[in-house]
Amino acid sequence: MPDFFNEQAKTDQKWMKRVFALAEGGIGHVNPNPLVGAIIIQDDELISEGYHHKFGADHAEIEAIKRCKVPIESATLYVNLEPCSHTGKTPSCAQEIIKHDFKRVVISNQDPNPLVSGRGIQILKNAGIEVVSDILREDGKELNKHFFKYITKKRPYLILKSAMSLDGKIATHTGDSKWITNENSRALVHELRHHFSALITGANTIVKDNPILNTRNGLSNPSHPKRIILDPDLICPVESKVFNTPEYGQTILVVNKENMKRAKIKFAASSVDIWECEIQNNSFNLDLLVRKCGAVGISSLMIEAGGNTNFEFIKQGIVDQLNLFIAPKIIGGDQAVTPFEGIGVDRLSDAYECKNINYSQIGSDLLIQAEF
Amino acid sequence: MPDFFNEQAKTDQKWMKRVFALAEGGIGHVNPNPLVGAIIIQDDELISEGYHHKFGADHAEIEAIKRCKVPIESATLYVNLEPCSHTGKTPSCAQEIIKHDFKRVVISNQDPNPLVSGRGIQILKNAGIEVVSDILREDGKELNKHFFKYITKKRPYLILKSAMSLDGKIATHTGDSKWITNENSRALVHELRHHFSALITGANTIVKDNPILNTRNGLSNPSHPKRIILDPDLICPVESKVFNTPEYGQTILVVNKENMKRAKIKFAASSVDIWECEIQNNSFNLDLLVRKCGAVGISSLMIEAGGNTNFEFIKQGIVDQLNLFIAPKIIGGDQAVTPFEGIGVDRLSDAYECKNINYSQIGSDLLIQAEF
Repeated sequence: MPDFFNEQAKTDQKWMKRVFALAEGGIGHVNPNPLVGAIIIQDDELISEGYHHKFGADHAEIEAIKRCKVPIESATLYVNLEPCSHTGKTPSCAQEIIKHDFKRVVISNQDPNPLVSGRGIQILKNAGIEVVSDILREDGKELNKHFFKYITKKRPYLILKSAMSLDGKIATHTGDSKWITNENSRALVHELRHHFSALITGANTIVKDNPILNTRNGLSNPSHPKRIILDPDLICPVESKVFNTPEYGQTILVVNKENMKRAKIKFAASSVDIWECEIQNNSFNLDLLVRKCGAVGISSLMIEAGGNTNFEFIKQGIVDQLNLFIAPKIIGGDQAVTPFEGIGVDRLSDAYECKNINYSQIGSDLLIQAEF
Repeated sequence: MPDFFNEQAKTDQKWMKRVFALAEGGIGHVNPNPLVGAIIIQDDELISEGYHHKFGADHAEIEAIKRCKVPIESATLYVNLEPCSHTGKTPSCAQEIIKHDFKRVVISNQDPNPLVSGRGIQILKNAGIEVVSDILREDGKELNKHFFKYITKKRPYLILKSAMSLDGKIATHTGDSKWITNENSRALVHELRHHFSALITGANTIVKDNPILNTRNGLSNPSHPKRIILDPDLICPVESKVFNTPEYGQTILVVNKENMKRAKIKFAASSVDIWECEIQNNSFNLDLLVRKCGAVGISSLMIEAGGNTNFEFIKQGIVDQLNLFIAPKIIGGDQAVTPFEGIGVDRLSDAYECKNINYSQIGSDLLIQAEF
């Protein structure tokens, strides 16, 4: 006798993997919404599929239903996130689903928002549809880790990215920093930027390198994250590229409260947004800043800054993940800049320990990903 | 029809692996001799085995012959290195082998010394013995890479070992450096010391940390490498542990020529050896020093020093392999010491590139091994 439940679980997992792959089509364009894919299976055949393409567009389930070319009869809908129960930019997905002849809905994750979690499922069940959830739940959470953090904590998921030599230098003592890592690593950084709602860097990086901070990864439709510049003392030149390239999206200048007036005058002719942030122990209160980012819909934030800014983020305990690219070369130099500076910890027992460490090779470079 | 040659090659490789494993029994005790193992196979059965236990003891082939409890009749001898042809501390192995009834001798590597290479094989062949060589040749070379470098270049194989945090710090800004890496990594360092003829460090390490620099890895019979201290300006205190622990072997103090007289007076009551070395561009001419090490029989040298000494070795281009332990923690600090200091390179294009990079996990630590 075949083990029916086991066979069913395997089938559900197989289709859910297809749903995850579809969901990834929305990377870079759905923020702060989640990545969602959906497929419709009828008589063991895939008859339609869809995904959430961009913020404001149809939800994945709706797209799959709209694109279906055959009548839906006793079908199964696979979708990685619980269908929504409220009418927002699009109609409630749960209400839309029950208008059609679905006998079964298979879900990976329930809605992480405690105010609505389970409501979509209840609407489906009340309509007599069998609902199975938690299929590949951890994979589903990993896919939408930015969204889960954003919804449950009201703040963006924070990645700190840096690139250094084997001996921990991000530039030579003369300041030469182009390029430490190989082409593939740099392409991956642009792919990362494409995933994120916003980048954050310090004024020194703007003054020294004058970067645009856009996404240049050869994608046909790259998403450019918002650019947030930490400039407490208002030292960035008005003519810096990052303030004069609105075609790559919004730039936000964060200044010390005292400099707010001066900043508004200095950047009067520019499209840059100016935020003030309180100073605490000679540094921005980054926790406040990050909460403000969350409040304006920034669900993921990548820190690409110098050693002092990087260390402040670590010290203030708000980094979720470190992405450190290491190139196999020795630069040396007691004055060469390192990825984490500031004053540093006094004792080794105070060092910031990483967990869930993952190593991967990017050609001859190494990418270390770790959480705090 | 079975492929006889292929079957024979597989059998030879199988036994040669056994020979390599036996040879490793001599690690730490045979320097500057090679690691050699030998087995005797008769009618497809292993009837005896041996290895070179320590410098001055029987060579592996002789031990295997002496330990053989049955008459040797038409046997095959497997040995990883070509049997020697000259009578030194022990009788010539080739002469000893032909006294017995061997029909076949299987070798991994020929003697790397061009003056004698092939002579042992010729003696065997002249006696009518079939000789097969180059079995797992590259593995054999890797096993004896210290010896091969020493014999062919007349200088020791140099490994530079360091341990740092993820952000490239070897201590906090206050100097706290015990311990950055985990217990397993530290045990591995002691296992490494056991392999080496000598360790080398700078005077600052002696002044700051006052280490003994012995081998403490829980081995029943640890080998303690010679300890070489680079102290151009004669700043090490006479009472430092490294100068007062002759039970752990020889300590060599290397000083600037100008300080030679003062050094002899300062260390008159000590068993420490004092070497002078010429200064060139404000640093020891390390190439000269390393040649001198080779001349006194030091076949392998591990650098365990601070950032300035480490960078000098890299800059002078004499390091064979880097062994870098990385612990998953962030220390920070623009004044915290890094593994390679000095002035460093000016341009990224001048950085010292590594090749043959190998990554391995030691618990949560990472060990990066790379060559230059």
